[in-house]
Amino acid sequence: MPNVSHKGKSMPESPIRKLVPYADIAKKKGVKVYHLNIGQPDIKTPDVALNAVKNADIRVLEYSHSAGFESYRTKLSQYYKNHGLPVESQDIIITTGGSEALLFAIGSTMDAGDEIIIPEPFYANYNGFATASGVTVVPVISTLEEGFALPPIAAFEKLITPKTKAILICNPGNPTGYLYSKEEIQQLAEIVKKHDLFLIADEVYREFIYDEGVQHHSVLNVAGIEENAIMIDSVSKRYSMCGARIGCIVSKNKEVMSTAMKFAQARLSPPTYAQIASEAALETPQSYFDEVIEEYKERRDILVAGLEKIEGVKVATPKGAFYCIAQLPVANADDFAQWLLESFDHNGETVMVAPAAGFYSTPGVGLDEVRIAYVLKKEDLKRAIEVLEAALIAYNAK
Amino acid sequence: MPNVSHKGKSMPESPIRKLVPYADIAKKKGVKVYHLNIGQPDIKTPDVALNAVKNADIRVLEYSHSAGFESYRTKLSQYYKNHGLPVESQDIIITTGGSEALLFAIGSTMDAGDEIIIPEPFYANYNGFATASGVTVVPVISTLEEGFALPPIAAFEKLITPKTKAILICNPGNPTGYLYSKEEIQQLAEIVKKHDLFLIADEVYREFIYDEGVQHHSVLNVAGIEENAIMIDSVSKRYSMCGARIGCIVSKNKEVMSTAMKFAQARLSPPTYAQIASEAALETPQSYFDEVIEEYKERRDILVAGLEKIEGVKVATPKGAFYCIAQLPVANADDFAQWLLESFDHNGETVMVAPAAGFYSTPGVGLDEVRIAYVLKKEDLKRAIEVLEAALIAYNAK
Repeated sequence: MPNVSHKGKSMPESPIRKLVPYADIAKKKGVKVYHLNIGQPDIKTPDVALNAVKNADIRVLEYSHSAGFESYRTKLSQYYKNHGLPVESQDIIITTGGSEALLFAIGSTMDAGDEIIIPEPFYANYNGFATASGVTVVPVISTLEEGFALPPIAAFEKLITPKTKAILICNPGNPTGYLYSKEEIQQLAEIVKKHDLFLIADEVYREFIYDEGVQHHSVLNVAGIEENAIMIDSVSKRYSMCGARIGCIVSKNKEVMSTAMKFAQARLSPPTYAQIASEAALETPQSYFDEVIEEYKERRDILVAGLEKIEGVKVATPKGAFYCIAQLPVANADDFAQWLLESFDHNGETVMVAPAAGFYSTPGVGLDEVRIAYVLKKEDLKRAIEVLEAALIAYNAK
Repeated sequence: MPNVSHKGKSMPESPIRKLVPYADIAKKKGVKVYHLNIGQPDIKTPDVALNAVKNADIRVLEYSHSAGFESYRTKLSQYYKNHGLPVESQDIIITTGGSEALLFAIGSTMDAGDEIIIPEPFYANYNGFATASGVTVVPVISTLEEGFALPPIAAFEKLITPKTKAILICNPGNPTGYLYSKEEIQQLAEIVKKHDLFLIADEVYREFIYDEGVQHHSVLNVAGIEENAIMIDSVSKRYSMCGARIGCIVSKNKEVMSTAMKFAQARLSPPTYAQIASEAALETPQSYFDEVIEEYKERRDILVAGLEKIEGVKVATPKGAFYCIAQLPVANADDFAQWLLESFDHNGETVMVAPAAGFYSTPGVGLDEVRIAYVLKKEDLKRAIEVLEAALIAYNAK
C-alpha cells in the first residue's frame, strides 16, 4: 500500500471540528448543545444577496474570469474606497473564500522551508495553509494578561532569519478579538520595511468593531509599504454568508498579483453563484450593519460580564470580531471540552467550546484556555454561560 | 521590495488564457472570434439544477460539512453504483471543482521533490497543481501517430525512481480525446501495484464517449488496486455547470481520505449554492445526456472530417471528451495562434485555438500542434473550420 505524504501526515486536524463526533453523541442522547465553538453566525444573510441568486437568469452556469467577475471587482474597489482604502479593481483577485486568498498569498510569496511569523494564538487554519505549502510557522506569543496586544517589536526582531518572508496578522483577531491600534500597525509596517518582508493582514472582520471612537486600521492604508502589504478579505462574516465561499486577495504589489493570478488560473475560477450573491451583497443597506454590530456588541457585553462572574475564569474583552479567549480553572481544556459533551449535562443542556491549544503553535501553551464564539442569540448565550459555570463546578468536583 | 516565491515564478501561465488579450483586441476591431480554444460548453445546464437553486429556501447561507453535504455524498455514491463503481459516501469528499480534488490528491500523496508520471500531452493545469505543491512532473510521451494511446509500459518503467509517488491519467483525455482501453487500465494497475504507487485518474469526462460498444473503464473498478486508486471527478462538464465549481475526490484508501479531509477542513467547506445545484443535477433525466452525447458526436464527426480535408493537417479521432489535438502545417502554433487574432480575418471572422506546447512538459514537443475544443454549435464549427483552412493558406503564403 502506497504511503500518504509527510506533509499530509503533519497537516493539523481542525481543533474546532474534532469534537464534532462527541457533540453528535450528546445530541443523540437528547442533550441540547450550545455551540460556542464555531464561527458560523446565526445572523440572516442580506435579502439583496439571496434574491440576486434567486432572480439570476442563467442558461449555462459558466466559468467566470479567473480573477472573478469584472463587474464585481469594480464594485468591490468602490466599496474599499468608501472605506478609505486606495484599492483599484486590478488590485483584487476574487477567491474561493478567504481560505484560498491565504493559500494564494502564501504560495505567491513563500517557498517550502520559508518562515512566516504569526502572533499567537492565531486562526488555527493558518497552520494548515502553511503546512500545505511546506512553510514553517514561527509564533510570537501574545498573552491574555496583555489583552492579546501586539507583542513588543523586539520579540519579532529576535525571530527574523534569512528564511523569514512574511508577518501574518488577523485584525481584528480570530480567536482573540483584539484590534490592532494605528501605532501597532505602524510598528509592523516599519519592521517589514526594514527587513523587506511581506505583511499579510487577514481583515475579514473589519466591520465587527464594538467600541465608540475606535476604528480599524488596514495595512493597505500605511504609506510606504504598498509593495509589502497583502490584504485577505472575505464576504463570509460581513454578510453572514460563510457558505458562499467568496473572498479576495488585495495588493498594490503587481508582481504578487500577477503571481497570484497564475494560481488563480490553475483553478479556473471562483464559484459563479456565490459571486452573484457577493456582488449583490455590496448593496446591503447600512441599517443591516448597524443592527448586526449592535447585536454583536450586546452579545459581547453579555458574554464578557457572564464569564467574569465565574470563579477562576479570566477573559480579555474583545474589541472586534466575535470571539474571545477565556482562561478556565482547568488543567486541560481539551479534556474539559470533551467531558462537556461526553459526560455532562445541566438540565439536559451542555456547551461546546474550542480548546485554545489548537490556536497556538508553541506546544504546551494555552492548555487551560478555550475560544468562545459569540454567535448565539442573547438568551442562548446567557443560558450557555450558566451551563458553563455549572460545568466548571462539576468538573472540578470530580 | 520583497520578492515573490520561486514556486510562484515557476508557476506556468495558462496556455489557453494568455491569448485572451489578443482576442479582446480582435473583438474590439469588430472581428468575430470562434472560440475553439476553451472547454466551456455551450450546452444548457439542466433545469433541475438551476431550479433547485432558485427555489432553495435559505435564511443563512451557512458553511456545509467540510466533506460536503451528507445528502449529496449519499446520492453521489448511488450515482457511482448505478455506473458500476463500488463507491460509498465515506469514500467521497466534495471539492471546489475537480481542480481542488487534484490539489488534495497531490497534497495528500506527495511531498516537495516527489515525482508524478503523466502521459503527455496532458491537461495544462496539472503542471500548475504540481508546481504549487513542489512536485516534479515526469512526462511520458504519447503521440498523434499512435492516436495518443497509452505509451508502452516499458516507457513508464524507465521513468520510475525512488521519488516516484504516482501516475496520473486523464480518461477520456483532455486534450487528446483518447479513451483508455480495459487492457491499458489493467497495465497501469499492474505497474502501480508492482511499484507501490498511486494511480490518480481524472475521469471528469466519463460520460462523453461517442462510439458504439465502447465503454469507460474506471480505475475504481480494477480489483487489487483499491489502496492505489484515486479518482477525480467534477460536475463541470457532465451537467455543463463549470461555474458551479464542484468536484470530488474518491478513494477506497482510508488513509488517503482522512489525509485529504485535513486539507478539506483547512478550507472549511465547498460552496453551498453550488452543492445545492450539483445534488439536484443528479436527477437530470437520461434524455438530457442522450441529446448532449449525440450533439457532441455530431460535432466531433464534423470537426474531424473538416480537419482531415485541410491540406497538411493531421488529427487523431477523439473517442471521448470534447477536444482533439491537431497537427498543423506551421512551424510554431503559438505564433500562428497569435497571428490568427492579431493579423488575420476571413470575411470579418477568425478562430482562437490553444497552442498544444502548453500541454506538453517536454520542451520543444508539440510546437506544430493545437488543441481544438468542439464546444461550438455545428454551424459555427463548420464555419470555424473554413476560417482555419483559409488562415493556414494565408499564413503559409506570408
